[in-house]
Amino acid sequence: MITSSQNPKIKLARALLGRPKERLEAGAFVMDGVRLVEEAVISNWGFVFVLYDDSLSERGMVLVESLKSRGIEVEMISSSLMTSLSGTGTPQGILAVLELAQLPIPNLPNFLLILDQIRDPGNLGTLLRTADAAGAQAVLLPPETTDAFAPKVVRAGMGAHFRLPIHSKTWEEIEQISKSANLQVFLADMGGLSCWETDLRQPLALVIGGEAQGASQPARKLANKQISIPMEGGAESLNAAVAGSILMFEIVRQRK
Amino acid sequence: MITSSQNPKIKLARALLGRPKERLEAGAFVMDGVRLVEEAVISNWGFVFVLYDDSLSERGMVLVESLKSRGIEVEMISSSLMTSLSGTGTPQGILAVLELAQLPIPNLPNFLLILDQIRDPGNLGTLLRTADAAGAQAVLLPPETTDAFAPKVVRAGMGAHFRLPIHSKTWEEIEQISKSANLQVFLADMGGLSCWETDLRQPLALVIGGEAQGASQPARKLANKQISIPMEGGAESLNAAVAGSILMFEIVRQRK
Repeated sequence: MITSSQNPKIKLARALLGRPKERLEAGAFVMDGVRLVEEAVISNWGFVFVLYDDSLSERGMVLVESLKSRGIEVEMISSSLMTSLSGTGTPQGILAVLELAQLPIPNLPNFLLILDQIRDPGNLGTLLRTADAAGAQAVLLPPETTDAFAPKVVRAGMGAHFRLPIHSKTWEEIEQISKSANLQVFLADMGGLSCWETDLRQPLALVIGGEAQGASQPARKLANKQISIPMEGGAESLNAAVAGSILMFEIVRQRK
Repeated sequence: MITSSQNPKIKLARALLGRPKERLEAGAFVMDGVRLVEEAVISNWGFVFVLYDDSLSERGMVLVESLKSRGIEVEMISSSLMTSLSGTGTPQGILAVLELAQLPIPNLPNFLLILDQIRDPGNLGTLLRTADAAGAQAVLLPPETTDAFAPKVVRAGMGAHFRLPIHSKTWEEIEQISKSANLQVFLADMGGLSCWETDLRQPLALVIGGEAQGASQPARKLANKQISIPMEGGAESLNAAVAGSILMFEIVRQRK
């Protein structure tokens, strides 16, 4: 059992829970919780190693046995180490260090999501979860958006990371991808056309801007059209994750 | 300037940031931030008192002067006290203690929202914000849902609390309200009919269940029909605030 906070595995896990730079350099990220680690197994995701402690549930112990039988390195650690590594108040007793891999963007996509300057990790994770549920084919993250592999984003994503191609790109690359697939680029913006009166069946990329300032200049330059969700009440705006989710499912509705 | 943590105003504010019981007993709640306090003024909401510190912006100081000219009690406090009262890492330098009042539920409503067992304060606040934007006429909170006047809910609500009737009710009261207004009660549930193929123009109440277990037994008993959002991708479910928001704006769309 690992009990030292200086153990190399513990040090690596702690570093990976921190800044994006650490994840990029190590080519790995951390995911915790029984259900998410189960989803990593189901998705055949690459494991580096797994840590657990004696608080792990019976279902979690079955998972540990299954990981071992697949040849994945699994080590028990002390409860105090597990607590120190858990970002939540209620650690689930299992934590996986996974390979930082990217699923490929399909050729000729017809539904991409571009998340521009989303800073709140909960909002970013929720948008990834919705994109997965709405069948978006890939999510492109321009500079200044929060790292999709930060712990809170991974947790809110609820497994989206295993099914959805998520790519950090420059605006030049995003423009190339959009042009080569002949996508209309729709920017969600308060003054835009009603989403209910816009044809969203054509191949498109949807741009959702940040919580505070909205979309950036490069996003505005790339966009062909602006669309909005007509409001009924007194509120001035919606939460960014909510607005993006309503628009993604409007695309699904129109394409049925 | 108040500098003592034992000052009665500081003690009251701290208590109101805690448990629902404290808010009920005092008939008051706390809201912080320049923009939200401005909205309280615009809404003619009842103030108990306001605290600020020397970090307050120019816009905030204009607000303080306007509060004073309305005869509202305003006191400066030390920065360390303000930081200790702020739930966020970045206090905005102003905090209002407001009356815990309820706007009335309109007679014969045709769009109510029932939030059942929503535990996460961010999700509850986001649902209130969306309900406000979607023109829901009131939100009913059965037992076991998080208190709508908890600090994180108020913050995520972005002013919805000043415009939207928000009422904690027993299931018997909720049933009475639904029956007397002749509302169809739709429960958001994975196995339900597609929301896009359900007529949502009739007078209705929409029930959104909690993040973990979904809707409760009384909610299932009350509901006439179950509706769902058809999924496209690999995800099993949506975030509760996202699912509720998509359904609320589907109601708005159909009623246009």
